[in-house]
Amino acid sequence: MKNRAQILNLLLAIVLVVLAIKIALINSETSTTQQDTTMETILTRTSVRSYTDKVVEPEKIEQLLRAAMSAPTAVNKQPWAFIVVTDRALLDTLSVLLPYGKMLKSATTAIVVCGDLNKALLEVNQAYWVQDCSAASQNILLAAHAMGLGAVWTGVFPREDRVAEVRGVLNIPDNLVPLNVIPVGYPNGDSTPKDKWNIENIYYNRW
Amino acid sequence: MKNRAQILNLLLAIVLVVLAIKIALINSETSTTQQDTTMETILTRTSVRSYTDKVVEPEKIEQLLRAAMSAPTAVNKQPWAFIVVTDRALLDTLSVLLPYGKMLKSATTAIVVCGDLNKALLEVNQAYWVQDCSAASQNILLAAHAMGLGAVWTGVFPREDRVAEVRGVLNIPDNLVPLNVIPVGYPNGDSTPKDKWNIENIYYNRW
Repeated sequence: MKNRAQILNLLLAIVLVVLAIKIALINSETSTTQQDTTMETILTRTSVRSYTDKVVEPEKIEQLLRAAMSAPTAVNKQPWAFIVVTDRALLDTLSVLLPYGKMLKSATTAIVVCGDLNKALLEVNQAYWVQDCSAASQNILLAAHAMGLGAVWTGVFPREDRVAEVRGVLNIPDNLVPLNVIPVGYPNGDSTPKDKWNIENIYYNRW
Repeated sequence: MKNRAQILNLLLAIVLVVLAIKIALINSETSTTQQDTTMETILTRTSVRSYTDKVVEPEKIEQLLRAAMSAPTAVNKQPWAFIVVTDRALLDTLSVLLPYGKMLKSATTAIVVCGDLNKALLEVNQAYWVQDCSAASQNILLAAHAMGLGAVWTGVFPREDRVAEVRGVLNIPDNLVPLNVIPVGYPNGDSTPKDKWNIENIYYNRW
């Protein structure tokens, strides 16, 4: 009886040490989190084109929109509008109209990022709103990935035919220009990010 | 003796349960870390225009470039090039030439994000390379912020005068178009992010 209690003691002590080591390891991991986690999100994000039928929660959609509106804009014009599409018939219609939009058939949500020409800085021919809305779009993709969602940037502007089609389906007014359609959903399976690192793209100071 | 061993058993068992609960709690925290940390980076990023004289480490510059090249590109063309400017005289020259470039005077590093027309999808007038390079630029800004650096997007393209000036200073070949100049450095003081959240920018389904 005494022996059994001592053996149990020993076993418990070993389990305790193992748990303590595990806690110490976990704590050392979390100290570098801000840098590592954001970099991990950026480096592992990839285009997700297949989704389960689990509906994206409204709180998560709001987070995606908060991320979008946190992007920088030229002269702080914030020349954007975001159309959240959750209507099944509209998603299906877009999936047929857009040549690269088939994945909209399985998505329960899409965000259409639009430039607002009434707010945009239009003093130059190819206006800055495209850059502002592209930065916002990238924020949406990263926020989606960080929340366990998958998304993909489906190009619309500057192709006039696609702009007209999306405008028609969603009844978008003239001052808004749809830049892209971003289907969002819970990933169906894993996707491997492309490795696009290429030092030949890097130059230093002057040619 | 038997009693003491049993009491020790009980104590060890209690400590064990406490540690197990702690691990469970830590694990439930880390499962939301990826989401929270990335969202925090996205929401708290802001334009930083004043820097200390601490030089940005080459490893961090590499991380910024890795982030940039992780952005999505239309038809996976990766139509980009990145010029890392650390030469004091070049940074000073750019600070004078660019109307919103004064902060380059205190920056030790700038990244010039360029579109590469030899790689770009050019079938449409306002090509997709602007969108691709804008997504890459946003990744640079977010990675910088996550690493404790500050940065700001200084617009160049589509203003022809600015494109020509930056091209001249850095001797950029014709196939590359500078989209922007992004000064990077250690922030001198705190910057408060703008609150740009505005529900009037959000629409649902159809007008």
